[in-house]
Amino acid sequence: MSAITVLGFPDYAEPSQRLGSALGARHALVDVHRFPDEESRITLPPALAGHLVFCRSLDRPNDKLIELLLAARSARDSGAATLTLVAPYLCYMRQDIAFHPGEAVSQRIIGRMLADMFDNVITVDPHLHRIARLDDVLPARNALALSAAPLLGDFLCEHVPGALLLGPDAESRQWVGAIAESHGFDFGVCIKVRSGDRNVTVELPAVDCSRRNVVLVDDMASTGCTLAAAAAQCLARGAKSVDVLVVHGLFFGDAVDQLRQSGIGRIWSTDSIPHSTSVMPLAAMLAAAVRRLDEGAMAARPIGNAEQEDR
Amino acid sequence: MSAITVLGFPDYAEPSQRLGSALGARHALVDVHRFPDEESRITLPPALAGHLVFCRSLDRPNDKLIELLLAARSARDSGAATLTLVAPYLCYMRQDIAFHPGEAVSQRIIGRMLADMFDNVITVDPHLHRIARLDDVLPARNALALSAAPLLGDFLCEHVPGALLLGPDAESRQWVGAIAESHGFDFGVCIKVRSGDRNVTVELPAVDCSRRNVVLVDDMASTGCTLAAAAAQCLARGAKSVDVLVVHGLFFGDAVDQLRQSGIGRIWSTDSIPHSTSVMPLAAMLAAAVRRLDEGAMAARPIGNAEQEDR
Repeated sequence: MSAITVLGFPDYAEPSQRLGSALGARHALVDVHRFPDEESRITLPPALAGHLVFCRSLDRPNDKLIELLLAARSARDSGAATLTLVAPYLCYMRQDIAFHPGEAVSQRIIGRMLADMFDNVITVDPHLHRIARLDDVLPARNALALSAAPLLGDFLCEHVPGALLLGPDAESRQWVGAIAESHGFDFGVCIKVRSGDRNVTVELPAVDCSRRNVVLVDDMASTGCTLAAAAAQCLARGAKSVDVLVVHGLFFGDAVDQLRQSGIGRIWSTDSIPHSTSVMPLAAMLAAAVRRLDEGAMAARPIGNAEQEDR
Repeated sequence: MSAITVLGFPDYAEPSQRLGSALGARHALVDVHRFPDEESRITLPPALAGHLVFCRSLDRPNDKLIELLLAARSARDSGAATLTLVAPYLCYMRQDIAFHPGEAVSQRIIGRMLADMFDNVITVDPHLHRIARLDDVLPARNALALSAAPLLGDFLCEHVPGALLLGPDAESRQWVGAIAESHGFDFGVCIKVRSGDRNVTVELPAVDCSRRNVVLVDDMASTGCTLAAAAAQCLARGAKSVDVLVVHGLFFGDAVDQLRQSGIGRIWSTDSIPHSTSVMPLAAMLAAAVRRLDEGAMAARPIGNAEQEDR
């Protein structure tokens, strides 16, 4: 394994430290200063060389994308041999087509921007629906989409054995189905109709919720509207409990309060986005992926694709 | 002249409309939507072709840079022949060297980003100090740095004839000196020592302020600390009045209140950044530059450089 340095950011110091420890690698922080004019100043730590792994999720992304650009270009100009981005939560993956004429397909544009900046990009469960492979939109040397599904399955076996898993929308079917089948859970998938950023209606599937411990499982929770609507209906149909388990806990504004008010009990997420609900560290999984990249093991085998098919 | 469309943004609609009118060109707005997760959705207006001129200043820049990237790439993919950015206020022009080891030289990195997005970039009085030419850091086909100095000189002749012009720091010498000499004003330059984002001390030059109408002239006003400190000293030395004239009125937070409290009377700026103080429209000057670019007149003559030397 070549000399790896994991570079974190002040707002993502703990997950990046965990990645550094899991890799047995040096960890250092990039300094970020915001001037009064809202420009960012980026200062790299001293003595960087070899394989640099920038670790930062890209929720609330615009400032972070510009800061990553400054950091990555500066590291490249200083002679770093390999630049890897580990962004457990990747941004702009939802706009994969022009839903209306004239809309910029941000998924492809931001994917290309990241591919121009980094040799390798590693993420976890990006919100890919109409495209099959991450490297279709993120043409880096290696673009790896890992899946946290096995981690979530193990967590559920331990904490809610016998749960009924519910995916909140059709897009979650394949993903919730895979967890349910590999770990022996019942599952169903709701039908969601969205009429605005915060307006959704949810229709439960034809599964009997009564006296069941329901867990709503999704790749991400943002406003929480969908999850809250689904939970209220489960409880109305006699569910014993409703918990929430997500990979990416964005939880905007009063999302957690809304979830509580709808009767949801426990809320769990990975540490993809640091939050009071983050109980599942991704470090071991991310470290294994960095190590495989670093050892060049993917040269013969398209890891990005294989990971994608696991989902 | 080819078919030009000027594209404005909702937060920059008036200056871009003025540019469209000055050019006699079609004007349309790019739609910008911010999702709850703080990602931006960009929608271009219909039927775009030919020469597209995006018009938006880049103060508070990070969101705007990402939105410009989405808009420009999308326009390019839709087949626009030529993309020009008119950004009267350009961002990230102040970090032109690493002041401390490890600092990213954002001027060059953002310059290259903009050059990758646009064929031409037009700006007004960018904050260039240690480099001579805009196209050294912004390697677009054409990178034009126009100077608002003649406009400011004319404005001063009309509104404060006989004024004593003061530049707030050594960096403003060349620029304030040029206005003073071309328009027949007395002038001096202060010495500024900065010890933090909002901590500055200012030493007045050896010029007699007493009973003079002083105008503090600068390329930009951000926190207003420097201008307020200079004004207080001018008044203490018996100045009859102190006004402020800047190209780029960023005026963060309570900057205008601070200026008023220091005894400053009138505050004027161009419409580079829309503000209650914006009294000097740049549209005619910007339109002339777009027209010259569009006619390809600059092919034989390096306009960028010539403009720079006018400063």
